[in-house]
Amino acid sequence: MAGGLDSLEKCLERHLPPEELGEVKRILYGNLSRKLALPAAALSAASQRAFELQGCGFGAAPEQLRQPRVVRVGLVQNKIPLPTDTPVAEQVAALHRRIEEIVEVAAMCGVNVICFQEAWTMPFAFCTREKLPWTEFAESAEDGLTTRFCQKLAKKHNMVVVSPILERDDVHGGTLWNTAVVISNSGSVLGKSRKNHIPRIGDFNESTYYMEGNTGHPVFQTQFGRIAVNICFGRHHPLNWLMYSLNGAEIIFNPSATTGELSESLWPIEARNAAIANHCFTCAINRVGTEYYVNAFTSGDGGKAHHDLGYFYGSSYVAAPDGSRTPGLSRTQDGLLVTEVDLNLCRQASDKWSFKMTGRYKMYAEELMKAVQLNFAPNIIKE
Amino acid sequence: MAGGLDSLEKCLERHLPPEELGEVKRILYGNLSRKLALPAAALSAASQRAFELQGCGFGAAPEQLRQPRVVRVGLVQNKIPLPTDTPVAEQVAALHRRIEEIVEVAAMCGVNVICFQEAWTMPFAFCTREKLPWTEFAESAEDGLTTRFCQKLAKKHNMVVVSPILERDDVHGGTLWNTAVVISNSGSVLGKSRKNHIPRIGDFNESTYYMEGNTGHPVFQTQFGRIAVNICFGRHHPLNWLMYSLNGAEIIFNPSATTGELSESLWPIEARNAAIANHCFTCAINRVGTEYYVNAFTSGDGGKAHHDLGYFYGSSYVAAPDGSRTPGLSRTQDGLLVTEVDLNLCRQASDKWSFKMTGRYKMYAEELMKAVQLNFAPNIIKE
Repeated sequence: MAGGLDSLEKCLERHLPPEELGEVKRILYGNLSRKLALPAAALSAASQRAFELQGCGFGAAPEQLRQPRVVRVGLVQNKIPLPTDTPVAEQVAALHRRIEEIVEVAAMCGVNVICFQEAWTMPFAFCTREKLPWTEFAESAEDGLTTRFCQKLAKKHNMVVVSPILERDDVHGGTLWNTAVVISNSGSVLGKSRKNHIPRIGDFNESTYYMEGNTGHPVFQTQFGRIAVNICFGRHHPLNWLMYSLNGAEIIFNPSATTGELSESLWPIEARNAAIANHCFTCAINRVGTEYYVNAFTSGDGGKAHHDLGYFYGSSYVAAPDGSRTPGLSRTQDGLLVTEVDLNLCRQASDKWSFKMTGRYKMYAEELMKAVQLNFAPNIIKE
Repeated sequence: MAGGLDSLEKCLERHLPPEELGEVKRILYGNLSRKLALPAAALSAASQRAFELQGCGFGAAPEQLRQPRVVRVGLVQNKIPLPTDTPVAEQVAALHRRIEEIVEVAAMCGVNVICFQEAWTMPFAFCTREKLPWTEFAESAEDGLTTRFCQKLAKKHNMVVVSPILERDDVHGGTLWNTAVVISNSGSVLGKSRKNHIPRIGDFNESTYYMEGNTGHPVFQTQFGRIAVNICFGRHHPLNWLMYSLNGAEIIFNPSATTGELSESLWPIEARNAAIANHCFTCAINRVGTEYYVNAFTSGDGGKAHHDLGYFYGSSYVAAPDGSRTPGLSRTQDGLLVTEVDLNLCRQASDKWSFKMTGRYKMYAEELMKAVQLNFAPNIIKE
């Protein structure tokens, strides 16, 4: 199901002659990110713990009045360690252990802000349309088991933690939400950001479980820059990225769960386009591996009932505001991508390209407001 | 200046083993467009006239109530045939001749809608900041020499012609605009669409010559589908694509003039992202070659005065609503890309992905309207 490739980049590196490889990389990836030297102990620990560890860096021009604002972000992609029919509490505990050992390595690499994959404490079971036991994975964003776990990690490692979970909101009728909890490096919960756009495609039956988010487009001011979280399906909506950016985000995380048949050719395009269009860094994180369910389900495509949602192809990457990007993590393995960025590059790219200055947002606000009216008359010119 | 590559695709085809090439193409290009068989006479004429001719096709699923709506679009990229210091009228005449011979081949290939590159009747001389002789290339959109020329071509070949020119609007004070004229296959002028976003970057000094367009986001209902024109810098603005789409465009042309140092790594991303996000076909057209000017000019980068704007890297392509795309035309040669599309794919992609249904445009209209107010308070959460 993974297809033949470990990663696109490694395939190109194996076969292209050096001089053409350089040109191909320039066209595909822009100004090349530099390789980031990581501590030997971290590389060794990653190897022992069976996950890929990559380090990349993006620079920015020196300025007179601002010091470089160098931050290391960590992107984590991982398989579920236990089968989906293991008791819920055991699955959660195993995921906590797996993430803890990856975060330890991130700390050795000096990571300041780390983000996990979408709904990281559970299998992505919404394909089943079954409510139990999957809704039992939902937790309070403010003081659930996982949030308390992340608070400890954050404080211990002086690291901002972005923790995307299935949320149970007991204050509002016990509703479920797809939510990212943002935890300060002090260990306190900074706030939460809910998934704004919910898919209705293929086996992504999430609209059976939760509604479009009502937290708007919050940006979190951390010690390591202003960050925001655009969860999964929101990456297909350019306006979603834009509003996080207009609220001041310098780094937008996109924790996702998406499969090869559906989206692999879209994956390198959308988060990268958002980094370009909004003069910010974007961090695209995908699950990896195949998750199997005991009860078979159909997919609304006339095909036979089956036991999995498809192959999560990993390939997590960081895109920079100058149009460049890192290589992707593996298509098949757990991984940690450590990327050093100088946040000054955001304003430098904005001053260079000026998409916000030339954006004409007032015109679009007015046109959009007309377009949603019931009596909207599209501007169509006929002979 | 062109770098070592004729085209990215040809380089990959030369070096990758077949089984890995297939996977790489799937990840980079999505569902592969099929090769379109073109008449031998057309291929021979293209070769004699020294331009590349490529044919591609995208299918769609059969439907019960709609017949396939198969349309052939033609994208033209070309060098300027004469030096920039040749008399204006001679340069225009040479470009008319060059386009006429390419359009003849397009007609042999059954092209229904053709689009030329941005400001196709002139060198892209706005880098110079000189007014004369460059503003002499401007013409009336409604009845200028070039529009009359295109009307003849359109009628002769039963072809819709999209003709991007420098426009002189004598009805409104003789102002200049960067404008695409859309001519029906009947030969009549359907209307015009002005460039909505004007660059202020590098040598793209267009804001010295003309302002942001005031024609909104018109869509032209032709016999071969509903088309729109997003000129050059507008491709960096996701809202620009969106409004053409909300007005009903099925094919959005993006006639451009952009150079390697600045944008080559952005080029495969932006128009393709727009096709995905808006469930439509997008056609990205770039100039090719280097254009030299007699008077040297500086670039606002502290460098020495020089005589050219950089290398236009061609690479014109079509992106489809399912995330796939054609190979690019050459980075170095004149070319015609003939792409057969079934417009039914647009609604099929929309029903599959539902980005319009899940787009929450009213929320964004309201948020955007707040964001442009002078007293806007960004949604920033602090500890």
